[in-house]
Amino acid sequence: MIKPTEFELIARLCKDLPVNPALLVGPGDDCAVLDVGIPGELLLLKTDAVVEGVHFTAQAMPEQIGHKALARPLSDIAAMAGTPTAALVTLGLPREFDPGVLDRVYAGMNALARRHQVAIAGGETTTSPGGMLLSISLIGKAPKNKVALRSGARAGHALFVTGELGGSLAGKHLDFEPRLEEARWLARHFEVGAMIDLSDGLAGDLRHVLNASKAGAELLLTSLPVSRAAKLAARNRVGAKTPVAAALTDGEDFELLFTVPSSQAVPLLDAWKKEFSKLRLTCIGRITTGPGIVLRDKSGVRTLNEHGYVHFK
Amino acid sequence: MIKPTEFELIARLCKDLPVNPALLVGPGDDCAVLDVGIPGELLLLKTDAVVEGVHFTAQAMPEQIGHKALARPLSDIAAMAGTPTAALVTLGLPREFDPGVLDRVYAGMNALARRHQVAIAGGETTTSPGGMLLSISLIGKAPKNKVALRSGARAGHALFVTGELGGSLAGKHLDFEPRLEEARWLARHFEVGAMIDLSDGLAGDLRHVLNASKAGAELLLTSLPVSRAAKLAARNRVGAKTPVAAALTDGEDFELLFTVPSSQAVPLLDAWKKEFSKLRLTCIGRITTGPGIVLRDKSGVRTLNEHGYVHFK
Repeated sequence: MIKPTEFELIARLCKDLPVNPALLVGPGDDCAVLDVGIPGELLLLKTDAVVEGVHFTAQAMPEQIGHKALARPLSDIAAMAGTPTAALVTLGLPREFDPGVLDRVYAGMNALARRHQVAIAGGETTTSPGGMLLSISLIGKAPKNKVALRSGARAGHALFVTGELGGSLAGKHLDFEPRLEEARWLARHFEVGAMIDLSDGLAGDLRHVLNASKAGAELLLTSLPVSRAAKLAARNRVGAKTPVAAALTDGEDFELLFTVPSSQAVPLLDAWKKEFSKLRLTCIGRITTGPGIVLRDKSGVRTLNEHGYVHFK
Repeated sequence: MIKPTEFELIARLCKDLPVNPALLVGPGDDCAVLDVGIPGELLLLKTDAVVEGVHFTAQAMPEQIGHKALARPLSDIAAMAGTPTAALVTLGLPREFDPGVLDRVYAGMNALARRHQVAIAGGETTTSPGGMLLSISLIGKAPKNKVALRSGARAGHALFVTGELGGSLAGKHLDFEPRLEEARWLARHFEVGAMIDLSDGLAGDLRHVLNASKAGAELLLTSLPVSRAAKLAARNRVGAKTPVAAALTDGEDFELLFTVPSSQAVPLLDAWKKEFSKLRLTCIGRITTGPGIVLRDKSGVRTLNEHGYVHFK
């Protein structure tokens, strides 16, 4: 039997799914978007699972596992400029487990939920034939005219990213803070075109935005905010990616990538510095008519290949 | 390490969960209930997983697996007298699988979704270390004053059940139809006290209602609507439960158990016959001040033991 890739499989399963008038945005954005009759607001819906051995190892601290399981879908609510309301937790447990470990998993999850006023509204436990599995469903809300989709990037927009990129697996992927407050502030004060949270890596997630927006992009490689972790890895590990390659292709950054009209780029940078002095915001390029992603550095320009990966010397 | 039971574990994890003003009903009912600002309506939230080897075997038809995965949480929306809106699907897949089988799983799920105007709004795929896993998150809505909770049973209420009980594992558990239309009709036309869908078996689920309502019940054993499957099993299988024991304790009936004030019992039965001529509705007893469940038959009364099981000669 020929095994399809994950993207092929999702495309196959998403063909001809049942719809109804309430569903405004279905599969293919950070969250589903529904009009359930809330005056002036839309409902956001997201589900996300972390699996032992895939998203965390048995060496991760239990508090970090609970934190990450909730932080991931919260980051998707942030990517729509939404406010999370409540979560349901599906807990898949192996036949043997330590209840004390579970208490700590929940402590990590609950602390993050409280910080963002998210209710844990229930869920269920089930048997997991392998390791631990935590699947979280989230609902949230966003003002009707402020929902940030992947499809809103337009040629001429400036392209921004929060924080620093690359090297997340050295630790950040287990304790990152979803950019909820920042995203809402952006949508309130600026015309956000497209927005996405970085989970597959900058190159891959930018491609999702460009496909949805039918546009291209030019990235300024010298402007990429490379994380200290990515620089350390490049220096200390034989065969590691260069820092720039790590910033482009490492997954699980969970920062926001978004566009605004170019006229708002400078006012945004000024206002951001006042509002969020501890979090970097960087203009990393611009949206073009495309197609594709062009990389610009001191030596000139070249095209990023289709698979989201590029080899640097 | 001492392994807690599922109920002990859930009680432990549900202690001190984060709440917020939107959350009206958290863990412990068929769905979570939230006030998200829809005029006159509340939001219902449910998640439910089916796992290969637990909720279905590799012998089940793929269409039935998809049907059951969605029908189970739809039955919980029905138990609140709600209307489902949209679902997210988390698909856990073993490393080797047949995409053609998945198409059939989705065909079964999508057909049921279309019948009830439920949008499949997205979801995700993930690796499952064991067999296939399908976890479905559902949102729905219910009128503010019509949400049917488990806690609404009062001494003197008449106790009703739809359909027939017992023997579901012979087939019904894979192709049952959630009682959505019937539940909404009930809430619209009668004063439903408590309602629950039967998943753990009549005795166990009735106990959930009684615990939530701080009440007791008297069951008329001779009135229980025993299914043909339960009668056949009792006749043909050595060591099988008696038909009445099967009706009391077999799981996965997915019928509605509910109470109404006793003055409405006869009008309800009359109106039901006109509205739903093909589906049985049976008065099986009444709510008492309790505590506990008393069983009445021709030979007198006795108390059902705490574990929901009872041995009949």
